[in-house]
Amino acid sequence: MKEKEIKNNRRGNEKEINKASIDLKGVKIIPLGGLEQIGMNITAIEYEDSIIVIDCGLSFPEDEMLGIDLVIPDVSYLKDNIDKVKGFVITHGHEDHIGALPYILKEVNVPVYATKLTIGIIDNKLKEHNLLKNTKRKVIKYGQSINLGCFRIEFIRTNHSMADAAALAIFTPVGILFHTGDFKVDFTPVFGEPIDLQRIGEIGKKGVLALMCDSTNVERPGYTMSERTVGKTFDSIFADNSKNRIIVATFASNVDRVQQIINSAVKYGRKVVIEGRSMVNVITTATELGYIKMPDNMLIDIEQMKNYTDDQLVLITTGSQGESMAALSRMAASIHRKVTIQPGDVVILSSTPIPGNEKAVSKVINELSMKGAKVIYQDTHVSGHACQEEIKLIYSLTKPKYAIPVHGEYRHLIRHAELAQVMGIPKENIFILSSGDVLTMSEEKAAITGEVQAQGILVDGLGVGDVGNIVLRDRQLLSENGLIIVVVSLEKFSNQVMSGPDIVSRGFVYVRESENLMDEAKDVVDKALNKYLSKNNADWGKMKTEIKDSLSDFIWKKTKRNPMILPIIMEV
Amino acid sequence: MKEKEIKNNRRGNEKEINKASIDLKGVKIIPLGGLEQIGMNITAIEYEDSIIVIDCGLSFPEDEMLGIDLVIPDVSYLKDNIDKVKGFVITHGHEDHIGALPYILKEVNVPVYATKLTIGIIDNKLKEHNLLKNTKRKVIKYGQSINLGCFRIEFIRTNHSMADAAALAIFTPVGILFHTGDFKVDFTPVFGEPIDLQRIGEIGKKGVLALMCDSTNVERPGYTMSERTVGKTFDSIFADNSKNRIIVATFASNVDRVQQIINSAVKYGRKVVIEGRSMVNVITTATELGYIKMPDNMLIDIEQMKNYTDDQLVLITTGSQGESMAALSRMAASIHRKVTIQPGDVVILSSTPIPGNEKAVSKVINELSMKGAKVIYQDTHVSGHACQEEIKLIYSLTKPKYAIPVHGEYRHLIRHAELAQVMGIPKENIFILSSGDVLTMSEEKAAITGEVQAQGILVDGLGVGDVGNIVLRDRQLLSENGLIIVVVSLEKFSNQVMSGPDIVSRGFVYVRESENLMDEAKDVVDKALNKYLSKNNADWGKMKTEIKDSLSDFIWKKTKRNPMILPIIMEV
Repeated sequence: MKEKEIKNNRRGNEKEINKASIDLKGVKIIPLGGLEQIGMNITAIEYEDSIIVIDCGLSFPEDEMLGIDLVIPDVSYLKDNIDKVKGFVITHGHEDHIGALPYILKEVNVPVYATKLTIGIIDNKLKEHNLLKNTKRKVIKYGQSINLGCFRIEFIRTNHSMADAAALAIFTPVGILFHTGDFKVDFTPVFGEPIDLQRIGEIGKKGVLALMCDSTNVERPGYTMSERTVGKTFDSIFADNSKNRIIVATFASNVDRVQQIINSAVKYGRKVVIEGRSMVNVITTATELGYIKMPDNMLIDIEQMKNYTDDQLVLITTGSQGESMAALSRMAASIHRKVTIQPGDVVILSSTPIPGNEKAVSKVINELSMKGAKVIYQDTHVSGHACQEEIKLIYSLTKPKYAIPVHGEYRHLIRHAELAQVMGIPKENIFILSSGDVLTMSEEKAAITGEVQAQGILVDGLGVGDVGNIVLRDRQLLSENGLIIVVVSLEKFSNQVMSGPDIVSRGFVYVRESENLMDEAKDVVDKALNKYLSKNNADWGKMKTEIKDSLSDFIWKKTKRNPMILPIIMEV
Repeated sequence: MKEKEIKNNRRGNEKEINKASIDLKGVKIIPLGGLEQIGMNITAIEYEDSIIVIDCGLSFPEDEMLGIDLVIPDVSYLKDNIDKVKGFVITHGHEDHIGALPYILKEVNVPVYATKLTIGIIDNKLKEHNLLKNTKRKVIKYGQSINLGCFRIEFIRTNHSMADAAALAIFTPVGILFHTGDFKVDFTPVFGEPIDLQRIGEIGKKGVLALMCDSTNVERPGYTMSERTVGKTFDSIFADNSKNRIIVATFASNVDRVQQIINSAVKYGRKVVIEGRSMVNVITTATELGYIKMPDNMLIDIEQMKNYTDDQLVLITTGSQGESMAALSRMAASIHRKVTIQPGDVVILSSTPIPGNEKAVSKVINELSMKGAKVIYQDTHVSGHACQEEIKLIYSLTKPKYAIPVHGEYRHLIRHAELAQVMGIPKENIFILSSGDVLTMSEEKAAITGEVQAQGILVDGLGVGDVGNIVLRDRQLLSENGLIIVVVSLEKFSNQVMSGPDIVSRGFVYVRESENLMDEAKDVVDKALNKYLSKNNADWGKMKTEIKDSLSDFIWKKTKRNPMILPIIMEV
């Protein structure tokens, strides 16, 4: 049993299920995450007896989801149709595209298809969850197609902030769906080849029924810079700081970024230390699979640092987003066991704060600066997502009949819809889908024909789905004002007070400040109790309400605060 | 009694009290807020028997200060030296420079000196707190000087995002201190004249001992754009959307911005509706004092909106930072009583998100977009703070002996220190002060010679300083994992269990999910109890610890969560 209230239907009024088209036959496109749960990228594609699922991401909790670790998709629809589900096809190895796999595979155990590095990253995850044995994984090469049920899916090379990203061309009985995954156009990528624009054009020429295209950077004009430009910045920072220890923080998954740091290290004769669990994991996998290349003896263990001088070292670490438990934050706060920031250290933050992380990043910059480190955070990052002109390029190559903007908040999807119109797609052929929407598409027609269950499921510790709105509301209330507990023991039949009322508070007010207040509060409770105990047939429910209300009024008047008030009556 | 632990001494090790200079005589500069409490701008200037105080701001709570409304400065030092304190000299009317006045004036009741609009804004505040009668306020004109104790203070015209901002030249017996306040250089301001660079140069020529200069935008190269550029953007948005209702959200205090919206409204024949309490307050005051000019009958009441068509209306509202209770957020969430967002509405966000507010602003943009509004947030704002070239200009005009960067986080102050060095100030003459530092300055020498008490005092509801670290830690714990209460009644002498143990939880786990868990938890508690009750001399303290530890272990093993556990034993 899951609580259902979490779902926040943000669709508004302007879009309703198209009842006239309810019997429309065709391919169904069903996002099970996305708009309502940004980051949770998972979309079911269904035709008659076949379902494939694109990606299986998780999202991180919103601010109001206190104490929650992760949010994963509700896949009831897949479970209810488990016989149809042929497999997961994964575009790339970022958390928001693969992170929920370990949870979902336990319930929907179907094969996983992806490119080599992506499978490598997934394997790491499955290993941690002891799922490697029971999961079928298959590596797919760029240009290769697989047949799953009535679908043929071709993996097409793209560029992104993680190597081995793929777009998917899904050949269905009613036409081709083209899903870009997360992408950018990088004509000079660090690893491998540029995005396969030729093949995208060729598929476009065959006729694309619908384009599902990345919207992340749709508000930005122009083109995203090549990843290589960051390498140049690294080179000049390394040249300018030849005497200092250099520490670079970036996303563990950005294998090409790491490669460029290593390239600069090679050029300037420095050894490389890797720090942070996820950084070690990804680099190990990427190196094993050939996605990172470095000379032998380049990598040294963190324990060996003491054998080198500052000018011989570069550390590559996690924590570029100010995550409180990541290695860089621990260094900044002087709680890292092995690295002590010293005056003269040069710290490069090679990332831009993700919205919501600005203050945490600023805190790390301040702390590092106070320790005398020079912190560099300008021109040290490029995005992995396409800007307006790149998105237009994909529209020009695919010329789809329908457009389904994906991957972004509503503000991005609506901006993307405007851009699609500029590119010639009629307004009525553009669909902004909410989680759970069922978009049915034939060769001639497309309409929202239904809705399936699709809300985020909250994960807290080992609990999956056992924290819902009531619990969150309580946590919110407790976090703002704390609580006051009133305990009293009453004799079973006489209703005589045997002990108490005792008043205990937590998170409400500093105890030494509140002695008088608590004495007065006790009087208020006594009065409320006596009102009921003087009667014969004392109703304990009503008695509790009376205690709660009168104490709540009293506390509000005295302090303008609203702590949770919890009366407990013991029968002895 | 206040808890003292809140103070987070971020000074690190690199700066210590200069014991050799402890007897240095001169003027003392003592920030009582600032670096450790960003926004809390308040600085005491002391010479022998005279103290003046520059500004009296408040800061808003950090994320970890759960449930806290405001943070105000600790002015123990001023109270201890109340006979010396001559008055507050205020640079401008922003919350981070005047917000704590109503709290502090209750304890340090000295006159307040400021320019006309600033006094107007302060008067509004004092009225709300019933302090108008008991507070001496005096309006000072640009160019005018006042004598307070041994100090002469001259108010000098600057530009900022609020009209009537002033820099202060403080003539002390040992030399001139120049404090810029928050400022920018605007050669074409909307109201009044550009910053008085001539006078600043003249004072510089006399010789400035120390410059205290705004650091907010020191990371940005070049110049801040003139406020007038925003007016041009408004004009073109009004021209492009002549059929639609226009809603503009901005800072209530940005009187010039409001004037420009009104100017566009006049030009395009629209009536103006003002919404949001602080917006109404500031505009009323600014209009009364002559800082906003508009034709008669321009302003209409929100109730009259229904008598006008969309193309005849512009709303000016609060909420540009996504503040959850502000008017725009309520419109976006469909809980505003008088304004319903409709498709076609054009909403202009005329501000840039302050770090930390990005997600809240994005939420409002998403919600407005979902209701069909067109949201415009590009080129609709300029900063009120000086960029690098403007800061350099002030250094060139004042040529100070010492530099004390003010107004910014550590990352800004350290960057400002670098810039000051470029401008010729020797490194040893630049001081980055922490709250409570006492910087003593003679004509020849400057050194940190002491430290006074200066930490933030937390305000929660009516409580000032009654919430400290223990309470905040409890709120944090409660917010993440909730709590479990164990109540048991024991007979006085026999230690026999008369009732319970009962287990009650809040904010921990959804009850229907946890029935088994709670049954098992009860067994754990029973076992812990029995272990003690079997003994003769049951120590209740130890019993509680045993219950707490064993239950905590059990819950962690089962759920990987750490709720607060609160055993309560009643003696009957």
